[in-house]
Amino acid sequence: MRVEIISIGDELLIGQTVNTNATWLGTEFSLRGGNVIHTTVIRDIKDDILEAIDRAFSRVDVIIVTGGLGPTKDDITKHTLCEYFNVELEVNEEVLSRVRSYFEEIGREMLDVNLKQAEIPSNARILKNEMGTASGMWFDHKEKVLISLPGVPYEMKHLMMERAFPLLVEQFEMKALYHRTLQTQGIGESYLAERIEDIETDIRNNGFGFAYLPSASQVRLRISSEKSELNERKIEGYLQQIEERLPQYVFGRENDRLSEIVGKWFIKNRLTIGTVESCTGGAIASEIISTSGSSEYFLGSMVTYSYELKSKLVGVNMDDIQKEGAVSESVVRQMAEGGRVALGVDYCIAASGIAGPNGGTLDKPVGTVWIGIAGPNGTSAQKFLFGDQRDRNIERTVLTALNLLRCEGMKINK
Amino acid sequence: MRVEIISIGDELLIGQTVNTNATWLGTEFSLRGGNVIHTTVIRDIKDDILEAIDRAFSRVDVIIVTGGLGPTKDDITKHTLCEYFNVELEVNEEVLSRVRSYFEEIGREMLDVNLKQAEIPSNARILKNEMGTASGMWFDHKEKVLISLPGVPYEMKHLMMERAFPLLVEQFEMKALYHRTLQTQGIGESYLAERIEDIETDIRNNGFGFAYLPSASQVRLRISSEKSELNERKIEGYLQQIEERLPQYVFGRENDRLSEIVGKWFIKNRLTIGTVESCTGGAIASEIISTSGSSEYFLGSMVTYSYELKSKLVGVNMDDIQKEGAVSESVVRQMAEGGRVALGVDYCIAASGIAGPNGGTLDKPVGTVWIGIAGPNGTSAQKFLFGDQRDRNIERTVLTALNLLRCEGMKINK
Repeated sequence: MRVEIISIGDELLIGQTVNTNATWLGTEFSLRGGNVIHTTVIRDIKDDILEAIDRAFSRVDVIIVTGGLGPTKDDITKHTLCEYFNVELEVNEEVLSRVRSYFEEIGREMLDVNLKQAEIPSNARILKNEMGTASGMWFDHKEKVLISLPGVPYEMKHLMMERAFPLLVEQFEMKALYHRTLQTQGIGESYLAERIEDIETDIRNNGFGFAYLPSASQVRLRISSEKSELNERKIEGYLQQIEERLPQYVFGRENDRLSEIVGKWFIKNRLTIGTVESCTGGAIASEIISTSGSSEYFLGSMVTYSYELKSKLVGVNMDDIQKEGAVSESVVRQMAEGGRVALGVDYCIAASGIAGPNGGTLDKPVGTVWIGIAGPNGTSAQKFLFGDQRDRNIERTVLTALNLLRCEGMKINK
Repeated sequence: MRVEIISIGDELLIGQTVNTNATWLGTEFSLRGGNVIHTTVIRDIKDDILEAIDRAFSRVDVIIVTGGLGPTKDDITKHTLCEYFNVELEVNEEVLSRVRSYFEEIGREMLDVNLKQAEIPSNARILKNEMGTASGMWFDHKEKVLISLPGVPYEMKHLMMERAFPLLVEQFEMKALYHRTLQTQGIGESYLAERIEDIETDIRNNGFGFAYLPSASQVRLRISSEKSELNERKIEGYLQQIEERLPQYVFGRENDRLSEIVGKWFIKNRLTIGTVESCTGGAIASEIISTSGSSEYFLGSMVTYSYELKSKLVGVNMDDIQKEGAVSESVVRQMAEGGRVALGVDYCIAASGIAGPNGGTLDKPVGTVWIGIAGPNGTSAQKFLFGDQRDRNIERTVLTALNLLRCEGMKINK
């Protein structure tokens, strides 16, 4: 199955928006054996859209068009599709009633422009959109398929996952590739490569694909092959080899999130957690509660940004703050221990650091972060030196803290 | 000047790499009056490259080709360009000596494949690359230009900024486009369109571009025109018209963040802020501190996820929680007021809601959120009904809370 992605929108061409839709679609099609051979970004102009569709039908089996389906005036995709397929717009009663009930649910009046969203080219099959008012549309055309989707990423993804992919898998033979991913935290790409050089060589010699996919503070390892039972077993073996060698870094597989992994451990052990945060300003807590069901183990947090609140809320000794500084082992230990008592939790994470861009000194440069964990078996604290970018320092602190907590759990379980 | 960007590389098509090169080029060309009307991503396959170049020459004046110039085997761009222009590869002595000295500098031996990097199509003008071994190449073709650049972002950017743009500005008259953006929060695309229908019509009748760019909880409005002093003044007038009509929704311009806007107001008025959060779990606080310098006005927060901590830390009446539920006007008001005292801040935001996916009831479905603000002039509270996705509900609560706080500030300033 050959695929082309056509994204419509000036905001993509002038660099105002990054075309993450095309990236996501590329990934999801390749996982399913779809071969994206062309992606195109064009303006919201009828002739450009007509030409792009025509060219795409000449070279691929499936065309995904994203964008140009909102209720406002700058959206001309539907009319252009009518012209291309030589059909008319028709009011679709099912869509109309859904748009109506959508507005009833959110308790707002429906506008005339929303009525237009129920007008659908007469040859289209509706892909029901539960995240918004613009329907996805499926067009069969000479044994090929064109799918038109709104450009809003979460609506587009919803429509692909829930509606389009199930239908595409039925209609086209897809030769699946097989990918497995390990997730690591706290080790850079090149150090990781050095630690598993022998395993990587073995994987490549077996003809499997191997890739390092680094992001801000995590590196994913991906092994890929053609799908077969034998290959799946072999890859599982490699994954386990790496997990056993680097348990302190490998925290999960596929799309696991550290906060989920940690959450499961807390649920299993019927323990509770809280945080006392300074430089992260609540970001550790908000990462913990991003997992649904977290109220089973997460009780609460305190963000003690000012000196006064560090002292007042969790009882950090003001003299220590003055003498050692707020970014110090002594203060972060007191934050963790004080928070454990004040919040009434089994484990308390504390973080204090200099996120930047200002506030660094010679002996405590921007990026210096202390992380402490107080638990039933005592308190530990560790110093890190991250980089000079505020956002990334906060993100790395959050993930590092959660991984330290995970490692703490491994010790207990031994 | 019309521009097309052709990016070559499987890693872009299968979603392994985001095409940030195209985004960067789109921005830089727009700034200089280049009109990027098409971007294309294709495979590293001769026929695909030939076809893409041929199509591009039929519709634009300048083609930028990125990728496919490295030393490894899968790079066939140079050979394909030779075929397209009907010329041969020639060893370029200048490039050869530069590649040699590059390897001397980094102290590594030059390999045969690196020698090949000095082979250049005979009709190409060299764009000297000081960041790597692959040269940029400039081809004149029937009054049009094709520029071929390596895909590594910092090499590509270096070659565009230092070599290609200066030459392009000489050869083409560039008529700069002018874009301005307004940012809104708390109003959907279609409602927005209705509220400013007359202004939008006026803008379009004047021949200006107008677009709605929605994301999860915000909609950006973009007005564009050809760059001229008159147009700039007119657009400024429209922006102000919209700002004056919808002050409760329009919070900023261009790339403003709500947390920055709110932060500036707090600094200007020498006031302090804190939060007491339930369903957002610290996400409001962490959005506030994402702005550097926030320690001037943000003192701290409490995340009271459990009933007990709502009562213990900020003094919410346990009976009210039992009777009204934690997601209620009474509780959110007490959270805001209690937090204002406990944290010693001028303003305290409180949020309590059902983020989902579980925990909804008939009268309080998933997505129900109460937001309260306690300040020097009393406490206000408002109920919202967002959607059924946990992540989005949290994000919308954060941005809505910050926008309510901004509106509170507007009242005070009147």
